[in-house]
Amino acid sequence: MKADLDRLMEERNIDAFIILGTENDDMDRNYITNGAHASATVVKIRGSDPVLITHPMEADEAAKSGWQVYTMADFDYADVFQKYKDDREAFRREYFRNILTKLDVRGNVAFYGTAGVMNTWKRLNRIQEDYSDRLQIVEDEDTSIFEMARRTKDADEIEALRAAGRKTSLVLRQTRDWLSTLRDNSGGIVDSNGNPVTIGDVKRFVRLRLMEQEMEDVEGMIFAQGRDAGVPHSRGERDQQLQVGQTIIFDLFPRPIGGGYFHDSTRTWCLGHAPAEVEEAYQLVMRAFTQSLESLTVGQPTSELQDLVCEIFEAQGHATPRTNPGGDEGYIHSLGHGVGLNVHEAPGISNLSKDTFAVGDVVSIEPGLYYHTKGWGIRIEDTVYIDEAGTVHSLTDCPYELVIPLQG
Amino acid sequence: MKADLDRLMEERNIDAFIILGTENDDMDRNYITNGAHASATVVKIRGSDPVLITHPMEADEAAKSGWQVYTMADFDYADVFQKYKDDREAFRREYFRNILTKLDVRGNVAFYGTAGVMNTWKRLNRIQEDYSDRLQIVEDEDTSIFEMARRTKDADEIEALRAAGRKTSLVLRQTRDWLSTLRDNSGGIVDSNGNPVTIGDVKRFVRLRLMEQEMEDVEGMIFAQGRDAGVPHSRGERDQQLQVGQTIIFDLFPRPIGGGYFHDSTRTWCLGHAPAEVEEAYQLVMRAFTQSLESLTVGQPTSELQDLVCEIFEAQGHATPRTNPGGDEGYIHSLGHGVGLNVHEAPGISNLSKDTFAVGDVVSIEPGLYYHTKGWGIRIEDTVYIDEAGTVHSLTDCPYELVIPLQG
Repeated sequence: MKADLDRLMEERNIDAFIILGTENDDMDRNYITNGAHASATVVKIRGSDPVLITHPMEADEAAKSGWQVYTMADFDYADVFQKYKDDREAFRREYFRNILTKLDVRGNVAFYGTAGVMNTWKRLNRIQEDYSDRLQIVEDEDTSIFEMARRTKDADEIEALRAAGRKTSLVLRQTRDWLSTLRDNSGGIVDSNGNPVTIGDVKRFVRLRLMEQEMEDVEGMIFAQGRDAGVPHSRGERDQQLQVGQTIIFDLFPRPIGGGYFHDSTRTWCLGHAPAEVEEAYQLVMRAFTQSLESLTVGQPTSELQDLVCEIFEAQGHATPRTNPGGDEGYIHSLGHGVGLNVHEAPGISNLSKDTFAVGDVVSIEPGLYYHTKGWGIRIEDTVYIDEAGTVHSLTDCPYELVIPLQG
Repeated sequence: MKADLDRLMEERNIDAFIILGTENDDMDRNYITNGAHASATVVKIRGSDPVLITHPMEADEAAKSGWQVYTMADFDYADVFQKYKDDREAFRREYFRNILTKLDVRGNVAFYGTAGVMNTWKRLNRIQEDYSDRLQIVEDEDTSIFEMARRTKDADEIEALRAAGRKTSLVLRQTRDWLSTLRDNSGGIVDSNGNPVTIGDVKRFVRLRLMEQEMEDVEGMIFAQGRDAGVPHSRGERDQQLQVGQTIIFDLFPRPIGGGYFHDSTRTWCLGHAPAEVEEAYQLVMRAFTQSLESLTVGQPTSELQDLVCEIFEAQGHATPRTNPGGDEGYIHSLGHGVGLNVHEAPGISNLSKDTFAVGDVVSIEPGLYYHTKGWGIRIEDTVYIDEAGTVHSLTDCPYELVIPLQG
């Protein structure tokens, strides 16, 4: 939670942090500015409230953070600008020193934000050189103070995550219901007028339903069929007609229009009927899904849950990240991840993860099996929330049935 | 153009570059991978084609780049993973060395991509330390080789930018036409049923029209009225009812769904009628807009065009970035920017810019005047293209009339 930031800064000996103002969307900034859409620089001295520095054009938006907002004028921007008209480097150096001085930034300073790698490298090297009299750039741990704070959600955040779950689940069910109105035409799926239905058609349907819920699909949903479902990150081919009896992986992870908390959920469907091999594998994935939800406990290393799922799959002869790291068939990814302002955030639920489950975690649980050479893939995913009693609640609400019966 | 990258690398003494694989959308990677949606690591040795390194899950998507794709197995991922199970740092170090060795990356190496600032800092410091026997991390110039290459568009890119312009312009005109069907109810705007029309309603209308054109508003359109129009980056308040005689700044900058080339365009409208002061200021902004388009020539420093517009505004007593840097009223931003895979890219058209206009540039031209204390703001923006003859073509096609007459 946000309130943890000062404690984490103290534990890690960070005197201040700066999120550099860039045009890149950055969820750490979004988090600390309470959702304000400003590309502001954020400065926080340990023990004090954050402050924002922005162009006057963005001052209104920055003020929505509830924090104090400075504009360039507060740091003698115009004077420095006139003084170093033809020397951008000298201009930057003095202007930034004015900020450090006025806000009394000194000591061990950490830098966050999202930016171009080359620009970050150049910028921080200059800062290191130019202000060595007052600050040292420090390295945070592998799980940053923001990842630590953001992973456990407070009541407002849970409410936002619940709302995202309700809306996304509605769209999942609407899509399922719509698919059940379609027909089989010699193996190809058609609508009631006999027109072929493509993956592009489905995605258009989903986008419209999302828009009705004021949600947007900024990361690009997956609706992948058959062989493509066997390659977890294949998004599906737009012009491909839906087919009877093929696995369809539908992974939907939208957020409110303009930004906010994501939901992440996946269903695997077969239209009309499912091959016996797929049906059997689906039951196994469902078992891995159910057992991991039942086993999840506060304080447990997340890697233990991944181990449990690996054992279930290995016992039936499937490769896993333990038996074949980096493999491309069987169970080939981690069991899940935190969900919040980013679709993927802390904690990780993988073999490598050092995290443990905590109250306030909101995580995806998403076991799957992938066999692109056999032409199928399966994944089942809910986003779940661990409440104060340690009870696990799913925020996803859509039937788990594999087969969607067709008309006629 | 992409073909320029090798020459630019040579001019800047860059032997190889690496775009680190991250989950962040990165347009340099998108550019060099020809639009493939893979969070792959990209390695390019000067004089050779780029290669991609990816998880097998993303190999299909990575292959769409047309370049050679390696997966982790090609660098002994599984062996290194087993060897350093409990030491992630040692694992990373050896695995990355396998990549550098097998691909023969050495000498002056530049790093690009988009990533968390803290992670970039830590990662590049480790690379600097761990592989000093074979590489030095080099700093690119202020305008990076990617910015240089990307700013001049080839024929395919111009076609994509034209298409984005056609679609965005259609939505601008549809919005204008729809607004002209509305009515004045004692100053508040209502639809034909007498229901108030809010900014939220307009944005919904626009999103639906964009979706029909397979475009998406990933950056968040501006539809700001009255005082909010006087603050250039205010996006407009969703629940505010449209009002007669207020300036409305409508800045629309969508891209094709899932990624691609943006269009950027702005119109300022008054519903029903416009106050005399606004009408006069509008004519002045229109003059700045027209004269800058007429003056734009290949080889000209972009700052000259900004100077021209500043002179036009200063002559009528308005503050500009020259007379009041960092000010919040008058003309308070740069004249424009390149438009491509990012809404904002090189070249800049500001007082500080060192760029000159070149054949193949696609730039926005967007003079404006802002007076939030007087309750209005004006901006006019087209995206234009400089062809091989140096002729400037607008890619935006929407009437420039300020006043939209209402019904009844």
